[in-house]
Amino acid sequence: MNSNKMKNGNREKLQIIKIGGALIDDEAKLTKALKAFAAINGKKILIHGGGKLATEISGKLGIKSKMYHGRRITTRDELVVVTMVYAGLINKQIVARLQALGCNALGLTGADANVIECDKRPVGEIDYGFAGDIRKVNHKEIELLMNNGRAPVFCAITHNLKGQLLNTNADTIASEVAIALSEQYCTELVFCFDKPGVLMHINHPDSVIPSINQHQFQQLKEEKIIHAGMLPKLEKGFDALRQGVSKVIIGDINAISKKSTLSTILI
Amino acid sequence: MNSNKMKNGNREKLQIIKIGGALIDDEAKLTKALKAFAAINGKKILIHGGGKLATEISGKLGIKSKMYHGRRITTRDELVVVTMVYAGLINKQIVARLQALGCNALGLTGADANVIECDKRPVGEIDYGFAGDIRKVNHKEIELLMNNGRAPVFCAITHNLKGQLLNTNADTIASEVAIALSEQYCTELVFCFDKPGVLMHINHPDSVIPSINQHQFQQLKEEKIIHAGMLPKLEKGFDALRQGVSKVIIGDINAISKKSTLSTILI
Repeated sequence: MNSNKMKNGNREKLQIIKIGGALIDDEAKLTKALKAFAAINGKKILIHGGGKLATEISGKLGIKSKMYHGRRITTRDELVVVTMVYAGLINKQIVARLQALGCNALGLTGADANVIECDKRPVGEIDYGFAGDIRKVNHKEIELLMNNGRAPVFCAITHNLKGQLLNTNADTIASEVAIALSEQYCTELVFCFDKPGVLMHINHPDSVIPSINQHQFQQLKEEKIIHAGMLPKLEKGFDALRQGVSKVIIGDINAISKKSTLSTILI
Repeated sequence: MNSNKMKNGNREKLQIIKIGGALIDDEAKLTKALKAFAAINGKKILIHGGGKLATEISGKLGIKSKMYHGRRITTRDELVVVTMVYAGLINKQIVARLQALGCNALGLTGADANVIECDKRPVGEIDYGFAGDIRKVNHKEIELLMNNGRAPVFCAITHNLKGQLLNTNADTIASEVAIALSEQYCTELVFCFDKPGVLMHINHPDSVIPSINQHQFQQLKEEKIIHAGMLPKLEKGFDALRQGVSKVIIGDINAISKKSTLSTILI
């Protein structure tokens, strides 16, 4: 506690909440998540995933969504759809709903005020198309936007500063934004998804592991207890902690308001 | 000249450029318009229309666009499409391209930072659906966003501050934003479309009327010289002048950089 306090120094607290696609698709949960986010006092940032809507719209438009190991291959047509759905529909609906809840939200892609610059992922064994890997988070622009009580709301669209929009993983955006702002702020990063935390037994929501350190993470990984989709989230979480983020929490919507005794804290 | 200077006082100049749908649909013209906008020194705001893409996407999604006297009836399904196309695809492509041109653009709907509050248009003889009539432009939020050299880029989506997104005419947004900022700034409003100005003869681009006052406007209207689609633009222009806007120009993309000797100035 004391060492943590010392580490945090006098930096102002900043809460960064990432909500996943499964929450976007569940109206009741999304409403609860937005209420909890709006109720947070102080500086805050929301980062949202995309949900199933992009795949649905692609289907209707006759574009076949291609995935490789759970990652979307962003073809040119698919980029049009994710830009429409993530940056347009989902982002603006969330912003309008947060405004109605008294939260001065402002929606962003990485292109807006050039907050996140990316490189198009190099073509290797797989061509991920218009996927963007983060080159730089312009933390000063984000800080300016947060002044006067505004809450930035990021979707998973970025750009390369050469006029090309790109599709970037929302967990990665959350982690990199948290790292970039951790010099100025005492940053707390919450990965909020459809489970109450990292589970010992995937089908038992009451088997939440309350805290995991890197050593335990390696063990759980070797024992294949940690679910495949959870691995990158935890890796990003530990990476964030190593690079200055003060606290990383993995849980469901109750983790936003910290009302839950559950959820997993990375240590 | 002197009286104009006195009227303007010491207010900083702000240029507000509205580009219409026909420019959005023409790649070469759009590129030229964005370059001209990026090259403007000082405070500036871009407002863009939607073009044909929303109608195209609606068609592909099986949604039939309904129009009434040239105005879109925004059904719930149509609102989804215009939010995706205007606030997502077009707005973010424009922002990314302006960033590549060295212009620190930031894309906005009326919901973002609550910059424009609207009321859903009351159902009269016609039900325009989710069409929004402007109730308030929060000029202070726009001023804050313009500080530090950012250029706001507005699309034609607003909200009602009760969580509902709305579709609002882009010419009206341009005019109301110009009026709201004219106390703080010496605002110049350019309506930029596919003709070089208000034409004496609709099919002769060289018949630009260089300036029109309200008296002449009434005459031209009575003589049916002014084309139907031009009427609301001129009405909004004169309304803007009456409410404090310093200059209103109607022209093609050359009017952005003022390189054209053509274009119509309202006086």
